[in-house]
Amino acid sequence: MTNFTHFNEHGRAKMVDISAKEESARKAIARSSVQMKQEVYENITEQKNKKGDVLSVAQVAGIMAAKQTSSLIPMCHPIPISGVDLSFEWNALEDKMYELIIDAEVKTVGATGVEMEALTAASVTALTVYDMCKAVDKGMIIGQTYLLEKSGGKSGDFKRAES
Amino acid sequence: MTNFTHFNEHGRAKMVDISAKEESARKAIARSSVQMKQEVYENITEQKNKKGDVLSVAQVAGIMAAKQTSSLIPMCHPIPISGVDLSFEWNALEDKMYELIIDAEVKTVGATGVEMEALTAASVTALTVYDMCKAVDKGMIIGQTYLLEKSGGKSGDFKRAES
Amino acid sequence: MTNFTHFNEHGRAKMVDISAKEESARKAIARSSVQMKQEVYENITEQKNKKGDVLSVAQVAGIMAAKQTSSLIPMCHPIPISGVDLSFEWNALEDKMYELIIDAEVKTVGATGVEMEALTAASVTALTVYDMCKAVDKGMIIGQTYLLEKSGGKSGDFKRAES
Amino acid sequence: MTNFTHFNEHGRAKMVDISAKEESARKAIARSSVQMKQEVYENITEQKNKKGDVLSVAQVAGIMAAKQTSSLIPMCHPIPISGVDLSFEWNALEDKMYELIIDAEVKTVGATGVEMEALTAASVTALTVYDMCKAVDKGMIIGQTYLLEKSGGKSGDFKRAES
Amino acid sequence: MTNFTHFNEHGRAKMVDISAKEESARKAIARSSVQMKQEVYENITEQKNKKGDVLSVAQVAGIMAAKQTSSLIPMCHPIPISGVDLSFEWNALEDKMYELIIDAEVKTVGATGVEMEALTAASVTALTVYDMCKAVDKGMIIGQTYLLEKSGGKSGDFKRAES
Amino acid sequence: MTNFTHFNEHGRAKMVDISAKEESARKAIARSSVQMKQEVYENITEQKNKKGDVLSVAQVAGIMAAKQTSSLIPMCHPIPISGVDLSFEWNALEDKMYELIIDAEVKTVGATGVEMEALTAASVTALTVYDMCKAVDKGMIIGQTYLLEKSGGKSGDFKRAES
Repeated sequence: MTNFTHFNEHGRAKMVDISAKEESARKAIARSSVQMKQEVYENITEQKNKKGDVLSVAQVAGIMAAKQTSSLIPMCHPIPISGVDLSFEWNALEDKMYELIIDAEVKTVGATGVEMEALTAASVTALTVYDMCKAVDKGMIIGQTYLLEKSGGKSGDFKRAES
Repeated sequence: MTNFTHFNEHGRAKMVDISAKEESARKAIARSSVQMKQEVYENITEQKNKKGDVLSVAQVAGIMAAKQTSSLIPMCHPIPISGVDLSFEWNALEDKMYELIIDAEVKTVGATGVEMEALTAASVTALTVYDMCKAVDKGMIIGQTYLLEKSGGKSGDFKRAES
Repeated sequence: MTNFTHFNEHGRAKMVDISAKEESARKAIARSSVQMKQEVYENITEQKNKKGDVLSVAQVAGIMAAKQTSSLIPMCHPIPISGVDLSFEWNALEDKMYELIIDAEVKTVGATGVEMEALTAASVTALTVYDMCKAVDKGMIIGQTYLLEKSGGKSGDFKRAES
Repeated sequence: MTNFTHFNEHGRAKMVDISAKEESARKAIARSSVQMKQEVYENITEQKNKKGDVLSVAQVAGIMAAKQTSSLIPMCHPIPISGVDLSFEWNALEDKMYELIIDAEVKTVGATGVEMEALTAASVTALTVYDMCKAVDKGMIIGQTYLLEKSGGKSGDFKRAES
Repeated sequence: MTNFTHFNEHGRAKMVDISAKEESARKAIARSSVQMKQEVYENITEQKNKKGDVLSVAQVAGIMAAKQTSSLIPMCHPIPISGVDLSFEWNALEDKMYELIIDAEVKTVGATGVEMEALTAASVTALTVYDMCKAVDKGMIIGQTYLLEKSGGKSGDFKRAES
Repeated sequence: MTNFTHFNEHGRAKMVDISAKEESARKAIARSSVQMKQEVYENITEQKNKKGDVLSVAQVAGIMAAKQTSSLIPMCHPIPISGVDLSFEWNALEDKMYELIIDAEVKTVGATGVEMEALTAASVTALTVYDMCKAVDKGMIIGQTYLLEKSGGKSGDFKRAES
């Protein structure tokens, strides 16, 4: 059984020592989503040509959150992020429901990966969409959040199987 | 159609003025989850009597994140949180998969609700579980994240229908 | 001569005690600006119908900065801001130069004023415009930054004389 | 035996709910110190008439740290601090050693006390003195750090017995 | 026309990818100022031999703000700053007005420049001077804030023309 | 006399320029402690098999604080920490008093040392123990806090003499 690395010999959590790891170019893409009813969808998309729409606020929040990842996740190493890009896509679901897909791509040149930065960016983007639309519907759901792919580093590349 | 409140007359996002709202006791409970395969589940639960296990680190992260909510969510008001409590529950899923349910309850006495604080606490708790177990499996999924209930404030109580 | 209040009897800076002050509704409006040449102006305004334009990013930055004021300004009290609204206006200057006027209005119900929050919001908004346009011209100037007006509190209202 | 309040019924840490507690004026004074050899003492005191001496930097750090207390101490409630005042005093010790006494007084009007804010302010002030003098001597010691007194709140006043 | 680099192919803001840029020594100097009437000027300068004067507090604030730049400016990369130095100079203006010139020099060895760090340091220093003197005069003006010079990096050196 | 390095030619504090220093592997270990009476000791140790005990919360706090060091200590350089490990040890003192020894080890590969990160981690760990036990006894004392050893960097290794 693969063992957890985040614990010291006393069984207590530690921040894993990465001093000996080489810096290399790394990338991670994470996905989250927000599911909403038609009324919320229309509220968001009808203002899409306005300045300062919901998605642009959410996207700024996601990018800024990527930079706060190591302040939020206790055992996460501080990493100098070299790039963040977020993209959005809409899906129509059944029963007049709509889904906003949020993909967050984060890059760095560093000694450890940026999976947590990508996941945090995607999560906070989704939370911000919820915040700005909750006056209309508190029942929105933030969909599954997961790693789509990562590359770089010694542990090898990861690519999520299509489901 | 209910209109968004987070926009000024120029169509730009603003932090809604709540100066005139009365302070009252408020509560919100949000839920998130992490789905993982048996190996990760066993790694977490077999150390559960150790000091500093995965869940206790995740829970500290969630509580601290609740206090950072207004720094992360752009239009969210800073609120003096008066209490945070997180609880965990395990479900066995099909195909030897396991699910960790995370419930975050946040309270305040303030002029606006703590839905975002509860959602942020639940999300960051889930992200921390992912972080501490990702050396074993990067394929874990953070499940749906949503508001279970809220009470207090003029907009009325909310309770999610059982699905 | 009016004396500084930010110093203790040893001549050292302190955060002034406001325990005895009553909470009341307060408002402050501050102004900053960015002066730029025509090329930058056109770059900004021609994308104004796009999602995520320069001004919407800058405005999110300004609102979030208002919430960080007491972390940035050493002797500034932490205040639960109850609303922030930013507005923009363009002026054509001489010599094909353009000026973006940034007005930041901040409200609170608290024991001290929000002048610093409004000034910080206006400054960080201007800094963000500079950041996003500096690839085109590093010679842009952030114009004078000052308090336009404040109201509420015992020290009386303030309104800047038109110049 | 008095039981810990920071744990929920599952034995996990929580932020204690203070929603029902009344706001009242509160004060706490904490003390820390730095012990140093004569050379460091002289370096500090001989520049004491300069602008920006070691103690003034340390004091700004202590005041700013008081405002970050709830971001640093996981179960600590965010409290709107209403005043912070730091004072310094020198003692000559044996063997040509010197001791800088640091007293931090913090005030609030709130539902819980400011002991942690005072202790954090005193600690960070001491750490900053160490940081600015460590090029001269890494062997400096931060002395005992403790609560001198607190008042306000239902748990009653506390005053440390002279030792 | 030079185009903005801070936008992705959907027209949304992103943090530009600098993974491929080489690290090099970089420096930037920015200037801001505060204009004030004689009474404020005398209050500041007459305490200049005191410990903890206005300028030393402002300078600590500016140095600390330089380190927060990437938390404040959304698309700004986190950079490990290697040095910050602030200097002050007084000018007598007409009509018994005085001007405090604030120059902030920031250095790094990194893949992108430190213009924003220098501008942020200068701005927050000016804001802190305003904060500490506003009890005497709320009419003070923070003067123009701009880049004086930058060096290092592929985009070439910049030096502001004397005006 | 060795002179302080943290001051510029105007006698004002600055963040020392380390641009020319080479990056190297560095380590620092700092110690702090908390002294408490038997009742507090028993409260802590009797729950030691529980999830989320006092020490595991304190340890998460210490690790997270290490990452905030440069935000707390004004002249401290931001450093990408590559590892943090905290350990605890109990001593029985006279008069039914007990002492919890806290050792914090921090590593980096960087241009300056991590003494402040280790001292800050140890201090905040101790402060968190105090916070979680203060409902039982406000008279606990945080013991001396000091550097045990450091290695790496040009200034040579340091090892505290046993006392």
